[in-house]
Amino acid sequence: MAEAQETQLITLSELNRHNSPQDCWIAVHSKVWDITHFIREHPGGPSVLLKCAGTNATASFDEVHAPDIIEELPKDKFKGFLEQPSPDTPATPPDSEVSSPPPSEKRSQMASSVDVPAQPEEEDVIPPMEAVLAAPDLAVIAKKALTPKAWAFYSSAATDLITYGKNKELVQRLMIRPRVLRNVKDVSFERDILGFKSRAPFFISPTAMARLAHPDGELAVARGASNEGIIQCISSNASYTLKSIVNAAPPEQPFFFQLYVNSERQKTADLLRTVRDLGIKAIFVTVDAPVPGKREADERAAQAIKIRSAISGGESSKDKKGSGLGRLMAQYIEKALTWDDLEWIRETSGLPIVLKGVQTAEDAKLAVKYGVDAIMLSNHGGRSLDGAQASILVLLELRKNCPEVFESLEVYIDGGFERGSDILKAICLGATAVGVGRPYLYSLVYGQDGVEHLTQILKDELEVSMRLCGITSLDQANPSLINTLDIEHLVTSGDRFEPISRMHRLSKL
Amino acid sequence: MAEAQETQLITLSELNRHNSPQDCWIAVHSKVWDITHFIREHPGGPSVLLKCAGTNATASFDEVHAPDIIEELPKDKFKGFLEQPSPDTPATPPDSEVSSPPPSEKRSQMASSVDVPAQPEEEDVIPPMEAVLAAPDLAVIAKKALTPKAWAFYSSAATDLITYGKNKELVQRLMIRPRVLRNVKDVSFERDILGFKSRAPFFISPTAMARLAHPDGELAVARGASNEGIIQCISSNASYTLKSIVNAAPPEQPFFFQLYVNSERQKTADLLRTVRDLGIKAIFVTVDAPVPGKREADERAAQAIKIRSAISGGESSKDKKGSGLGRLMAQYIEKALTWDDLEWIRETSGLPIVLKGVQTAEDAKLAVKYGVDAIMLSNHGGRSLDGAQASILVLLELRKNCPEVFESLEVYIDGGFERGSDILKAICLGATAVGVGRPYLYSLVYGQDGVEHLTQILKDELEVSMRLCGITSLDQANPSLINTLDIEHLVTSGDRFEPISRMHRLSKL
Amino acid sequence: MAEAQETQLITLSELNRHNSPQDCWIAVHSKVWDITHFIREHPGGPSVLLKCAGTNATASFDEVHAPDIIEELPKDKFKGFLEQPSPDTPATPPDSEVSSPPPSEKRSQMASSVDVPAQPEEEDVIPPMEAVLAAPDLAVIAKKALTPKAWAFYSSAATDLITYGKNKELVQRLMIRPRVLRNVKDVSFERDILGFKSRAPFFISPTAMARLAHPDGELAVARGASNEGIIQCISSNASYTLKSIVNAAPPEQPFFFQLYVNSERQKTADLLRTVRDLGIKAIFVTVDAPVPGKREADERAAQAIKIRSAISGGESSKDKKGSGLGRLMAQYIEKALTWDDLEWIRETSGLPIVLKGVQTAEDAKLAVKYGVDAIMLSNHGGRSLDGAQASILVLLELRKNCPEVFESLEVYIDGGFERGSDILKAICLGATAVGVGRPYLYSLVYGQDGVEHLTQILKDELEVSMRLCGITSLDQANPSLINTLDIEHLVTSGDRFEPISRMHRLSKL
Amino acid sequence: MAEAQETQLITLSELNRHNSPQDCWIAVHSKVWDITHFIREHPGGPSVLLKCAGTNATASFDEVHAPDIIEELPKDKFKGFLEQPSPDTPATPPDSEVSSPPPSEKRSQMASSVDVPAQPEEEDVIPPMEAVLAAPDLAVIAKKALTPKAWAFYSSAATDLITYGKNKELVQRLMIRPRVLRNVKDVSFERDILGFKSRAPFFISPTAMARLAHPDGELAVARGASNEGIIQCISSNASYTLKSIVNAAPPEQPFFFQLYVNSERQKTADLLRTVRDLGIKAIFVTVDAPVPGKREADERAAQAIKIRSAISGGESSKDKKGSGLGRLMAQYIEKALTWDDLEWIRETSGLPIVLKGVQTAEDAKLAVKYGVDAIMLSNHGGRSLDGAQASILVLLELRKNCPEVFESLEVYIDGGFERGSDILKAICLGATAVGVGRPYLYSLVYGQDGVEHLTQILKDELEVSMRLCGITSLDQANPSLINTLDIEHLVTSGDRFEPISRMHRLSKL
Repeated sequence: MAEAQETQLITLSELNRHNSPQDCWIAVHSKVWDITHFIREHPGGPSVLLKCAGTNATASFDEVHAPDIIEELPKDKFKGFLEQPSPDTPATPPDSEVSSPPPSEKRSQMASSVDVPAQPEEEDVIPPMEAVLAAPDLAVIAKKALTPKAWAFYSSAATDLITYGKNKELVQRLMIRPRVLRNVKDVSFERDILGFKSRAPFFISPTAMARLAHPDGELAVARGASNEGIIQCISSNASYTLKSIVNAAPPEQPFFFQLYVNSERQKTADLLRTVRDLGIKAIFVTVDAPVPGKREADERAAQAIKIRSAISGGESSKDKKGSGLGRLMAQYIEKALTWDDLEWIRETSGLPIVLKGVQTAEDAKLAVKYGVDAIMLSNHGGRSLDGAQASILVLLELRKNCPEVFESLEVYIDGGFERGSDILKAICLGATAVGVGRPYLYSLVYGQDGVEHLTQILKDELEVSMRLCGITSLDQANPSLINTLDIEHLVTSGDRFEPISRMHRLSKL
Repeated sequence: MAEAQETQLITLSELNRHNSPQDCWIAVHSKVWDITHFIREHPGGPSVLLKCAGTNATASFDEVHAPDIIEELPKDKFKGFLEQPSPDTPATPPDSEVSSPPPSEKRSQMASSVDVPAQPEEEDVIPPMEAVLAAPDLAVIAKKALTPKAWAFYSSAATDLITYGKNKELVQRLMIRPRVLRNVKDVSFERDILGFKSRAPFFISPTAMARLAHPDGELAVARGASNEGIIQCISSNASYTLKSIVNAAPPEQPFFFQLYVNSERQKTADLLRTVRDLGIKAIFVTVDAPVPGKREADERAAQAIKIRSAISGGESSKDKKGSGLGRLMAQYIEKALTWDDLEWIRETSGLPIVLKGVQTAEDAKLAVKYGVDAIMLSNHGGRSLDGAQASILVLLELRKNCPEVFESLEVYIDGGFERGSDILKAICLGATAVGVGRPYLYSLVYGQDGVEHLTQILKDELEVSMRLCGITSLDQANPSLINTLDIEHLVTSGDRFEPISRMHRLSKL
Repeated sequence: MAEAQETQLITLSELNRHNSPQDCWIAVHSKVWDITHFIREHPGGPSVLLKCAGTNATASFDEVHAPDIIEELPKDKFKGFLEQPSPDTPATPPDSEVSSPPPSEKRSQMASSVDVPAQPEEEDVIPPMEAVLAAPDLAVIAKKALTPKAWAFYSSAATDLITYGKNKELVQRLMIRPRVLRNVKDVSFERDILGFKSRAPFFISPTAMARLAHPDGELAVARGASNEGIIQCISSNASYTLKSIVNAAPPEQPFFFQLYVNSERQKTADLLRTVRDLGIKAIFVTVDAPVPGKREADERAAQAIKIRSAISGGESSKDKKGSGLGRLMAQYIEKALTWDDLEWIRETSGLPIVLKGVQTAEDAKLAVKYGVDAIMLSNHGGRSLDGAQASILVLLELRKNCPEVFESLEVYIDGGFERGSDILKAICLGATAVGVGRPYLYSLVYGQDGVEHLTQILKDELEVSMRLCGITSLDQANPSLINTLDIEHLVTSGDRFEPISRMHRLSKL
Repeated sequence: MAEAQETQLITLSELNRHNSPQDCWIAVHSKVWDITHFIREHPGGPSVLLKCAGTNATASFDEVHAPDIIEELPKDKFKGFLEQPSPDTPATPPDSEVSSPPPSEKRSQMASSVDVPAQPEEEDVIPPMEAVLAAPDLAVIAKKALTPKAWAFYSSAATDLITYGKNKELVQRLMIRPRVLRNVKDVSFERDILGFKSRAPFFISPTAMARLAHPDGELAVARGASNEGIIQCISSNASYTLKSIVNAAPPEQPFFFQLYVNSERQKTADLLRTVRDLGIKAIFVTVDAPVPGKREADERAAQAIKIRSAISGGESSKDKKGSGLGRLMAQYIEKALTWDDLEWIRETSGLPIVLKGVQTAEDAKLAVKYGVDAIMLSNHGGRSLDGAQASILVLLELRKNCPEVFESLEVYIDGGFERGSDILKAICLGATAVGVGRPYLYSLVYGQDGVEHLTQILKDELEVSMRLCGITSLDQANPSLINTLDIEHLVTSGDRFEPISRMHRLSKL
């Protein structure tokens, strides 16, 4: 790529001089880049780049990004190689005093079958993967294994976590009505999703920056999903390039892509064509996050770093809008996206369109009207608007108010699904497939093995649940297997109050 | 003011002689006053004055009052200057053995950006304001920063805190139904309140004695509100004089005034004319507290002091009605106030009338009948009658039983609103504006900066919530955005039982 | 009484010989009695007497009984005086190794205004009475002040405490709808109960063995109730004789009497005539406890003693039915009492009849049919049948199914009423008066003063609640002041399933 | 049995050679058996046998099985006696490093009436049986007394324990409506169950491997049940042979048998004939567990052992389906059992058929159609499919949707019944009898005495509850005594959504 300049060596003091927003260079893995033009386009926000201006930023870069992603910068921004005693050893990054130990260090505490720890059950040790019996175990383990920053970013949800909690609670409050004395010897839970074969009726919901959990990040997810025959929906904010992720799996493995539309539409157009060229099968247009929700745990983690840095004599930030990773990533998102833009996305990509984040019967009907291929009922895992209806409520709302949409498009759902029986409930109530998000991020503590292990657990739970319900294929899944009465009083039947024509009565005085 | 007497010096032993209810002098900031006539009129009750009778009461006075407020006593009650070695240094007050460290001492523990603390995260340290991400954070901080007495007074609510808890719980149980794919680039949340522009649809609910939290008390609130373009409703029991508070903001800044009608009506008439002359814009007549509620945390704090003083050989109080600050302040309140008195208040003040504390559809309809300009649905933050319906339930009750009142008057609400999304819920259901009370008191830990910081947080949360709901102005807020089904079964539709004509049957024996 | 025999002295060794069920003497306060005939009639059960057979039982006796109550034995059972070095000092009782410190010892830890404790706030110290702000405080204090056995007996309820908890919870879930702008200057809460004036609409529910809490026991209650102008309903299992209790108050003070009908009817007849002759005003016939409920905390306390005694070489009890104080006291109760027996009770006593323990609309209607003067909705404070409906639900059940009963008889209620506002809720919903039980027992930690203090608290809370509701007399109390919707779905409307005619199908084999 | 070979002695080294799946011998109580053919038929799964291959397995065997059960192997599999210094002392078993102390060791800590412990109330000591006042006490005690493995197996339920918890919660939420003033002197609670007399309307639900709790296992249960006049339903997975269990009681004592149908039908046919020949009275066909549920506590206990063994250099298990005792035991179960197989079971056994595990009204109606004698509403104690409806809900569902089934067959129920009043509730709502499972397992901590003690407690509670309800025989039990309104909104009335005919719309692209 940068062959022409390969002989040019740049000294550290030369690099250090380019340290302003108007002239900003950084070194990554011994290559020096001019990123001045890119500062405001950085999905992770400008400030994190400016903190690295004029320095060797390798350590900070590696924590979040795959090595190849920087090569996507224009070739003319490559300035040469950093002249250094041991160029591949990253220098102390500017934020070293606040950085947590990298994941790999943490993972070294993991108990393995060959390396016998003295006290295998002590609290801080990560148990061997065989000890993971179910998805909820993974959250407990991830909290121990990840850096506080990564844990905060992955686990946080909006403000008071009401929607986050309700997602799970309301799924659990659905009761199952098992049928007995049916031949359940042979069970199949294969499912077509948008016409693509999946060995199970669930897929991996898009989640950002998997490299925070494991060096292989989304590559591990792609390989694991492929081995297990399920589909990965790749996040717009992946740590690896789309190309690396897609290439990590065999050619026949289908992928979906989650799109945030950029306020600079041309960038989105370029991206969509890349997506199409890589053979990705569908576009999940994110519609539940025109702006990021307020994830306070995430912001608090960022805050903690800032405050410490302020105390030690650094900048005194007054960033009022918060600066957790979630907030930063969303700065480029188009806030003016409307229904009419969907046609442009479809035409540009030439791919089926799935709306990710539909939350009302009204919008489900609009989705049919606009010819969308599928909708995903989602509140962004409780990360967008706290207080929004739990996803499962929206599924029931559609059943109650517009059952006809299930005949016109496929309906997916995510938010709070952690068990095979949870997935079965959604299928019984009409969903085509269920997205599973955070548990897969957490499974990355064990890399690709973790992704496969979690998938096998969910499949096993699903199979057991189907047998215990007396069904042998998902075609037999139907609402009569579910008693929804504990939450059905919460299902709205549309507008019940007329808007008020408020008359601002003039004071009589 | 008291120039004529300025040469007269009074010795401490002379002062000490006037120490009975029949002849009671006190010294404040080196001036000696005869307060015999005022003992029973003191909003804070007589006993606290009698404890200071014949002494230098400066310290006790300063804890609650602004320096200028004593100058409102009639001029002839000024007796001269206290002759003292260092007259401005207050002598040990009579209650010194029980007083907590003054707020300012507590605040000195606050971590600042310039003064680096050794252990910035240790439990007792007040974090820098930047660490405050949301209103609930402020309660945690205030509990640490305030004196126990001030914290008890601010945070306490009636008896078992049922209404206090329900206010917040029921707001949280309202679910939001976000709409997607709408252009939400430009958002405005300006609101007219009684015809006055507010940059946001919330105002500062009246709360008493802000000086307990910060020396600048209500002045800081006035300045912060003015800078942020929102309206402050001044409490009858402010620490500062009305004049000082109004003058703390630019002339164009509107104020409201919360009125407790005095059982001596003439005093109220005088007060209303002062209010009008100061350019205050409306009178919030307090109707939910003809007598004070029973705030046991507050009374317990007072009790603790009394018991300690009793144990150390002092008086053995038998005050059966409790003597927390809340109880004391309410002794002068007119218990006989009725609907027919409203006209007199309106005429005397020449100002719009808002009824603060309406709690039923029946009274909302009466408010329309009596030509009131607005009503505020409030249960005094759960401080009046424990067990009273949560405020949000009353809003739904009005929607269900008398939607027409929304066309005749403006409806405000307070009680349990801590988030931008909480505020949006009330607006969607028909409220014109939402009052925020305790969080602003707690924000005073950071003085005026805290008031502005909290306002910015609420505005930001509101803006994010509107965008995520798919609306760009409050005119688009409407009930279809809210799923009320989790609490709607609690909304009464009026009398459902006929009163019983109980026949006291004579015993047959 | 026993003058004729007063010269006869009985040696301890002589007493010791009468130690069998067939020949059982005990000494109490230096008098020796033959109680052989009484063993099986003892309300507290035979075993406790047999444990004292042939010994000086003064200490055990005093813990539960007033001195005079033993004089009710027939005169010919007095055998003479015990010859002893210091006859009034009780010898070590047989159960001394398991007895807790007597209440008076515990009470000596109480902080008083004159006797300054070193650490006035340390956990185990009983606070001065002024620190008691509300009824719930008393339970906390009683738990510390009483012996474990007394606390277990007073506080225990049936098995899993479900009804005990629901009594209180459901009262709290009633919401109040306060009305505003009414003249509430002058408030009266006087009430006629069965035609007798009470200064408040509540009375003291019958509770057993008050001497466990204070040496003055029911005498203190009688004096306090009289001073405060409320009525005491005396328990069948009082520590003092009826005569002593009635005589403790002035002649004009009315009393009620709670009756357990004895399976030996003649004893009940004798008792009823005593009641009538003492001028007691009404008979509360206990109908919710034909057998005692299973109070496991109480039984556990008894069990603990037995086990310890068994371990130290004593008897190995195999009493399968439990032997807590509650169980023991109920052994003499008539299990065959029916509606038709009421006329006999009325005729024998010549007094109004109140049925204590009505729990269904069906039985309320029967009470009208049988000409009962009043019914008391009660589940024995949750001590009888665990799982029984909360008392307040029964009140609503009557309103819904048979409102006419309120015109034919008075309706009282107890169970979970701890606040003035709780009492007001019941009055609004149709109750004539509310019984308060356990809080008065707990108030006895402070003796008569405690009884008066609690009464004043409840009156004050009631008065404040009435004012804040906008009413000035109980005649204005009505259902529209109460929002019952949070519990109204629990109110039955009678039989909804037909009983099943089960056909025991013969097996086809 | 094996007389012919009794002279043959086998050396330990000879035994050790037969240690593979193809040639597997084990020694038990000094007899050596060839179990090669039996490895895959073992109800407890093959792996536990393979771990013992070629060793003296006496200790492992005794933990779970009665000594006689191995004699059920074909005679030609007996290979001779083990030549050993002390042949009856089991050698160190292969899993000794992970085995917990055997139950008998644990039980030696039990406090007894004769052996006085120093600190009778210290936490780890098992209290004497007299201290057990109710069934819930037994769970607390069993957790202390049993090995962790046994406790995990007995107490565990499926995945998130939702159904397990709801079983109990919903029974508790049923409210009782006691009637008063009825003659309740003489109470009878006898009940015919399938035509067999039971002294109480409950029986002992089948539970597996009682020897884990007590060496006498099911024999103790049989003797206790017989003494108390109630019926035991023997588990398919009992520790003792059916013959031993049946012979432990007098000939007139009736037994039921719980059947898991084996996928090798001939084995089931043989078993059914044995059952018939032993005089057992009915077959409870297990229909709620065609595959085992996922009991994570149980699997975690097994996992802990495996991981420890893996760490110490042993096998690295990758058993994805879990290997708790519950999973292992179920491997032989027929997954293809259908309604049409019932006739074969009936004919083969010549006994009445009870379906254990009916969970819907639909299946209850099918049971009538297929001529079943009784159904047992059960979700396997929450151990099968987590999220399944609570048992009591199914009873109400039958009442609502198909009350006629109660006239055609008997209805039993289990799951969450721990109190006499719980049992009474089910009887009132139409159940013929109630099964009690786990509490009886826990009672085995005290052996046969525990079984009798628990039975007496339940009878006493039932009798008290009946008296307090005003009934004297179970014929008077009827739905009007129960207020079901707190859970009735959860009772389904059948299919409410039509299944969706999903049209996989082809993507328009």
